[in-house]
Amino acid sequence: MALENYIRDIQDFPKPGIGFKDITPLLGNPDAVKECMQLLLNSLKDKNIDKVVGVESRGFFFATLLAYELNVGFVPVRKPNKLPYETISSSYELEYGMDTLEVHIDGIKKGDRVLIHDDVLATGGTAAAVCELVEKLGGEIVQCNFLMELSFLNGRNKISKYDIYSPLVY
Amino acid sequence: MALENYIRDIQDFPKPGIGFKDITPLLGNPDAVKECMQLLLNSLKDKNIDKVVGVESRGFFFATLLAYELNVGFVPVRKPNKLPYETISSSYELEYGMDTLEVHIDGIKKGDRVLIHDDVLATGGTAAAVCELVEKLGGEIVQCNFLMELSFLNGRNKISKYDIYSPLVY
Repeated sequence: MALENYIRDIQDFPKPGIGFKDITPLLGNPDAVKECMQLLLNSLKDKNIDKVVGVESRGFFFATLLAYELNVGFVPVRKPNKLPYETISSSYELEYGMDTLEVHIDGIKKGDRVLIHDDVLATGGTAAAVCELVEKLGGEIVQCNFLMELSFLNGRNKISKYDIYSPLVY
Repeated sequence: MALENYIRDIQDFPKPGIGFKDITPLLGNPDAVKECMQLLLNSLKDKNIDKVVGVESRGFFFATLLAYELNVGFVPVRKPNKLPYETISSSYELEYGMDTLEVHIDGIKKGDRVLIHDDVLATGGTAAAVCELVEKLGGEIVQCNFLMELSFLNGRNKISKYDIYSPLVY
């Protein structure tokens, strides 16, 4: 199955000059979802994951499924003021300005073996911030995986000390 | 398994005087997630669902899992300007002001048998707006389900013509 056939290119989204990879055709096709899951799960054999961390909000789709298939807990990382309990936060630079992510302090326990999932690895700023949150809570990052990697943005450089896997690479 | 033990009450969130039901302890426990899934799936036997619609963003968790287990497509309903392709929208009243939800025009096909999922049925405004979106695209709403229903807010009244199911009722 050619997974790239289920990724739709949208020009000038979210702003002029940006080409956006729309994953909704893939989400709408159960065979494509199962194929992605098989590839992601194959990369996680014998990894003994304890928690799957998913990044708001497109990262929630496959992170939820991965936690379900691995039979472990799911932990959401969210934008500020969305999580209701006590949180820790990590801020990172965007092209203009800063962004912040939060996680519940009881989401990860010291020593938990953690899989981090987001839909896209782009510049790596988000992924690096999520890694920082997980490690602040004492988690051990076993893998960072993504549905797709935009390799021309060199996001790998920001998280190069971790194992990285994406079924789709552009 | 007493699912309510995995729902955490948070006082004064998101604002003073509001009691918030935090589902993250449930998401963090794979046995509780599986129990919810079993209850939700039991309510869907022989319903011949074609699409599962999940509502941003806490609705994404179980909607993704339900689409996966039912082996059908998943369709996200999102806040404005988040979906990159052509959309239709529906606006609804909040306590103060209005809110708007969007769905891709190719998310639902005419005649699709649709399951709508969100995490909480509260006043029913969001659910009614999502039902409107699905029906505008020609979908047939087979069930609206939720992880929990806050029955004292009478949200059922706004979607009373549909089949409604929630494993947890407060």
